[in-house]
Amino acid sequence: MAQKKTTRKTTAPSNLTDRVRLLQKRLRPSGASALLLTNPRDIRYLTGFVGDDSWALIPLRSSKAYILSDFRFDEQIAKEAPHAQAIIRKKSLAEELATLANRLRLNKVALQPDYLTLAQRKPLAKHLGAKRLLKTDDGLLQQRAVKDADEVKAIRKALAIQQQAFRETCQFMKHGQTENEVAAYLEYRMRALGADGVSFPSIVAADANGSLPHAVPGKAKIKAGGSVLIDWGARYNGYCSDMTRVVALGKMKPKIEEVYQIVLDAQMAAIEAIEPGKKLSEIDKVARDVITKAGYGDQFGHSLGHGLGLDIHEQPVLSGKAKGVLVPGHVVTVEPGIYLPGVGGVRIEDDVLVTPKGHKVLSDLPKSLESAII
Amino acid sequence: MAQKKTTRKTTAPSNLTDRVRLLQKRLRPSGASALLLTNPRDIRYLTGFVGDDSWALIPLRSSKAYILSDFRFDEQIAKEAPHAQAIIRKKSLAEELATLANRLRLNKVALQPDYLTLAQRKPLAKHLGAKRLLKTDDGLLQQRAVKDADEVKAIRKALAIQQQAFRETCQFMKHGQTENEVAAYLEYRMRALGADGVSFPSIVAADANGSLPHAVPGKAKIKAGGSVLIDWGARYNGYCSDMTRVVALGKMKPKIEEVYQIVLDAQMAAIEAIEPGKKLSEIDKVARDVITKAGYGDQFGHSLGHGLGLDIHEQPVLSGKAKGVLVPGHVVTVEPGIYLPGVGGVRIEDDVLVTPKGHKVLSDLPKSLESAII
Repeated sequence: MAQKKTTRKTTAPSNLTDRVRLLQKRLRPSGASALLLTNPRDIRYLTGFVGDDSWALIPLRSSKAYILSDFRFDEQIAKEAPHAQAIIRKKSLAEELATLANRLRLNKVALQPDYLTLAQRKPLAKHLGAKRLLKTDDGLLQQRAVKDADEVKAIRKALAIQQQAFRETCQFMKHGQTENEVAAYLEYRMRALGADGVSFPSIVAADANGSLPHAVPGKAKIKAGGSVLIDWGARYNGYCSDMTRVVALGKMKPKIEEVYQIVLDAQMAAIEAIEPGKKLSEIDKVARDVITKAGYGDQFGHSLGHGLGLDIHEQPVLSGKAKGVLVPGHVVTVEPGIYLPGVGGVRIEDDVLVTPKGHKVLSDLPKSLESAII
Repeated sequence: MAQKKTTRKTTAPSNLTDRVRLLQKRLRPSGASALLLTNPRDIRYLTGFVGDDSWALIPLRSSKAYILSDFRFDEQIAKEAPHAQAIIRKKSLAEELATLANRLRLNKVALQPDYLTLAQRKPLAKHLGAKRLLKTDDGLLQQRAVKDADEVKAIRKALAIQQQAFRETCQFMKHGQTENEVAAYLEYRMRALGADGVSFPSIVAADANGSLPHAVPGKAKIKAGGSVLIDWGARYNGYCSDMTRVVALGKMKPKIEEVYQIVLDAQMAAIEAIEPGKKLSEIDKVARDVITKAGYGDQFGHSLGHGLGLDIHEQPVLSGKAKGVLVPGHVVTVEPGIYLPGVGGVRIEDDVLVTPKGHKVLSDLPKSLESAII
């Protein structure tokens, strides 16, 4: 019953080792002897391996990670995760896992309940035994909220790409083009500039469509003298970035101009308030107070921002209901908005890193009212 | 405990009614009183509603479908599925489902084990009672394999878009461009021509990279006198299309030319063999025999084709191991290939509809050896 395995002698990069150690420390009290990773982003986060259709096993009392995969990914694992032990399966993933768990004498294996279907659990229960399966909150969403230097670097690179693509799109954009045409061009330029892809489907919303927070780009036309809300992001090395800008062709309608300045003031005030130890709900309140005082509180119907990383929506959430405080390494969007049905919407969004002493805004496209006229 | 509901008086389009009736007939013997849909593609297939974060409930002894969603999708449901009853949730999906199931006196609710996580099942078991949950293979993958006229129309439209984008990309492609640049342009044009998006990440593989069946476009350059394998698809109204062509800039290397003709002969022979009642494995064999006879059997390491529809990979599968036969309404790819490590690869892929009397090739980009020189 010996499994075909490829033994690597490389040591894991120190940031991966740190991530695994923290996970092990957190999970030991649960009684688990290992964690089975079925979420591809978590596998990437803890091993470096990017392929799909694969699982990873992290024993809690050993420094060796195991990747259960198939022949298609043998070379890729060797390249991306040379420190991990690759198990190139000949039987099903569940059978290979059972063999491995027995070999390592693992008593209890913790699962990721958010990333395992009923259909996937069934053969696990059969081959490993249902009693050895543990549904543990693995806390990885919380752990991943705090970014290390490599992660911040990837987000910065994603931002550099999305900002350059935006500049090119502002050159490209003309009266009479459809939202869909502009979105397609913007995404093309991000991809051509080296993005893995988009971090989410871009929003390009002309005039009144800008009042729908999750508008899908359609056949509506960009018009001279009208405004366009663009919410877009790039993915680089797996990491997401996310920004929003509102621009107007030639001139901006007075009502949009009025709320633009309010949203910008609210955003700047909230960014200014960001520092370690501050309550998440407090940051939301700073922006909301500015908008409410200006009389548009009811037109700001969503929370202020969210963490981002390997997922476009991560912890922490900047909302009135959120518990907890900011800590160094959090990367959050700050994106207040005012939406006027039938008229249009303004949202301004930047990505902000919480530093040991305060914060650093990672995005730097201009956002003054003047710069919004193109 | 009355649920907020929006009652619509519209009747469902007849193809949706037919789909629901067939599902009900198939599932009644299972003892279920309703099926809970958690796969968004199945929700779309049976109700027409396209949003996410929503579930649908199909009782097996009533013609009314229920969509459990939230306020963001209220208008969208009214537009896309006016015949369904929308339940705009105030509590969790699981709680709303339990209220609905009690109101309808549903005894057993069948789940979709491939599309329900352990974390999603937990509150269902709590509010509905674990004994009322039934893990049934709902057979929708088999049902969806047979396309109706509306579905074929959407696939045709996706093909028209991807073919036009390909023609434009052939004009755009020049010596010295990277694979990634070409892939980005191709996807841009599909989007600009009205595609919802791509049906899968495009493969643009220059020269030797063409020998990797799932190459990711990278920084390798397209060269005059070299070959490029392009495997791409568009999505329209949710439906996928999928084609592969190999082109050469100016002239083709003799070895590629040799295998090109063999692959083309294999593909044409397999397409010719397609008709209702034929074994799936037999179609694979027709193509494989041509390639094996030419001495390249070992260089054709994947199955011949697959169904497509709302998913890019659907039933039926054209492989040596597949059970079953072709039936009218199947839409399959036919994509033999020969891969020569270090040299390059050729794969030629078209989408074929099984008709009552034979078949109809839905794609029509030229594929003769002459047409491959651009």
